[in-house]
Amino acid sequence: MSQSTGRSTPLPMVAPEAGLPSRVTIYEVGARDGLQNEQALVPTQVKAEFVRRLLTAGLPVVEATSFVHPKWVPQLADAADLMTDLATSLGDASRDLPVLVPNERGLDRALELGLRHIAVFGSATETFAQKNLNRSLDDQFAMFEPTVRRARDAGLDVRAYVSMCFGDPWEGGVPVEQVVDVGRRLFDLGASQLSLGDTIGVGTAGHVTALVRAFEAAGMTTDQLALHFHDTYGQALSNVQAGLRAGITTFDASAGGLGGCPYAQSATGNLATEDLVWLLTGLGIEHGVDLDAVVATSVWMAGHLGRPSPSAVVRALAPSEPAGGSLAQSPA
Amino acid sequence: MSQSTGRSTPLPMVAPEAGLPSRVTIYEVGARDGLQNEQALVPTQVKAEFVRRLLTAGLPVVEATSFVHPKWVPQLADAADLMTDLATSLGDASRDLPVLVPNERGLDRALELGLRHIAVFGSATETFAQKNLNRSLDDQFAMFEPTVRRARDAGLDVRAYVSMCFGDPWEGGVPVEQVVDVGRRLFDLGASQLSLGDTIGVGTAGHVTALVRAFEAAGMTTDQLALHFHDTYGQALSNVQAGLRAGITTFDASAGGLGGCPYAQSATGNLATEDLVWLLTGLGIEHGVDLDAVVATSVWMAGHLGRPSPSAVVRALAPSEPAGGSLAQSPA
Repeated sequence: MSQSTGRSTPLPMVAPEAGLPSRVTIYEVGARDGLQNEQALVPTQVKAEFVRRLLTAGLPVVEATSFVHPKWVPQLADAADLMTDLATSLGDASRDLPVLVPNERGLDRALELGLRHIAVFGSATETFAQKNLNRSLDDQFAMFEPTVRRARDAGLDVRAYVSMCFGDPWEGGVPVEQVVDVGRRLFDLGASQLSLGDTIGVGTAGHVTALVRAFEAAGMTTDQLALHFHDTYGQALSNVQAGLRAGITTFDASAGGLGGCPYAQSATGNLATEDLVWLLTGLGIEHGVDLDAVVATSVWMAGHLGRPSPSAVVRALAPSEPAGGSLAQSPA
Repeated sequence: MSQSTGRSTPLPMVAPEAGLPSRVTIYEVGARDGLQNEQALVPTQVKAEFVRRLLTAGLPVVEATSFVHPKWVPQLADAADLMTDLATSLGDASRDLPVLVPNERGLDRALELGLRHIAVFGSATETFAQKNLNRSLDDQFAMFEPTVRRARDAGLDVRAYVSMCFGDPWEGGVPVEQVVDVGRRLFDLGASQLSLGDTIGVGTAGHVTALVRAFEAAGMTTDQLALHFHDTYGQALSNVQAGLRAGITTFDASAGGLGGCPYAQSATGNLATEDLVWLLTGLGIEHGVDLDAVVATSVWMAGHLGRPSPSAVVRALAPSEPAGGSLAQSPA
């Protein structure tokens, strides 16, 4: 009973389902969230080409890097050089690339470069706030307040990541009400969109529905929310489906599943952009992304990282990719 | 922004969702569908222990093997010896283990052993029928007829697998009407349950809904249908969720995702039992399976196969499992 694969595109949609959005925005986090969680240090010019290829593939939002201190994230220590490279190659369009800024110092760099979109990174739990931000859960808002206020005063758009929205490795399940409270406070500071993250990937579909409904009950709308899933326990796409059914239209994803090597102990398992595209295409939901171009980009980046992509779609469509070691040539 | 995992169980259900079943039957196919698609030849006594461990872990149905000719599936050439071993160790309970039988000769062996459940394996497409069964799509029914009739006359229960229900590597998308016609004819021959397989894993959630609805329109009920997904394109659990929402209560799964090595070109990517259990537990749907026991079993089997499990849950909960080569000791 031999079997083979080989389709390069999802099957045509069979029948549209009621209650699903007609169009979704994929917020690409591979260059920032992905690469900051990879062991390999990627050369600046490779990162710049990565961002350009993702844009060319039709991804509407590509977060480029983080102005975090190199001590904490050495993988992104070249953030300023990267943005300079992108400004040269992309011109004014580079100013539309969101950059994560942890504090006012990071904001200063964003303002100097004339960027139009920043993101801040908060925590839904006390323990992770202390471990990641060195602040209490409550104190994080005071920390973000001047950054967000100054950014908004300067006309910048601010996205707020909220991590550990489903479970926390130290605290276990995170109450929905607690996530809504944190998210609501970040929104009230001036964020235009919350990205609700299942940082350790333990959430399941019913939890997603409950969380979205709780935010709506607190007065927020689905277009102010994005969902950010990790495939650590294989639940990411199932959770996306629950989010779609709850009316969410922005989903974070990482090209090739960057940021989560399947055999690393600390696998974070970012949802792969390709797997998300396959689902959306099958559901007949518009996304504007050229799947083949993203797959080719992920295979090329896998060569630079020296290991195969953990994305199921990439593995299925590019199965001859070596398991590591070869440095694929960049086209052009 | 360091992250860690480490939860051993899904989070408690947050809120039950309307329209989902309260209980699901997991039909475990790892010992048959899984091992027949693995390169390694597993010793008979290891297979027997695998089946016993799966039963002990609470899996309600464990398909044991296939009475197919060893020429076609050398991995299961020891089917008779395996069933003898299981008859010795499990006694009468071994007769409840389903076995795949390709033809009357296989049925004769099942009858000699006093088995109570067999399965046959049909195709929803012309090309796969010819390649896999050496029959035309129509001729497969004539081939199955005496096997199913004699089995039913002897009081046996017959499950019918229908492969390529969503897409086919040669024909592309498979029309829903064609699948319903094939399934309906197998059901009318005497099958008690159809297992609708996305053999190459290309289907997405809306397609699942449409297929189940089409079978209902043809007079079948959701308890006569099972769904069998492969994770080749990462869609398996999302498709399960669509099946649950359509009222399906039996899902096939393979412990540890056996049958689909993530880095093999011909990866079939069986849905991992552990990943399915995580989803069901999170949704508050009863399944009766001890997740830790299945994970331990999959880790043990991975040692015998010399490669890690492709299941996301196994990788997350047993990350220290070596990437291959070590033969884990069987516990007693």
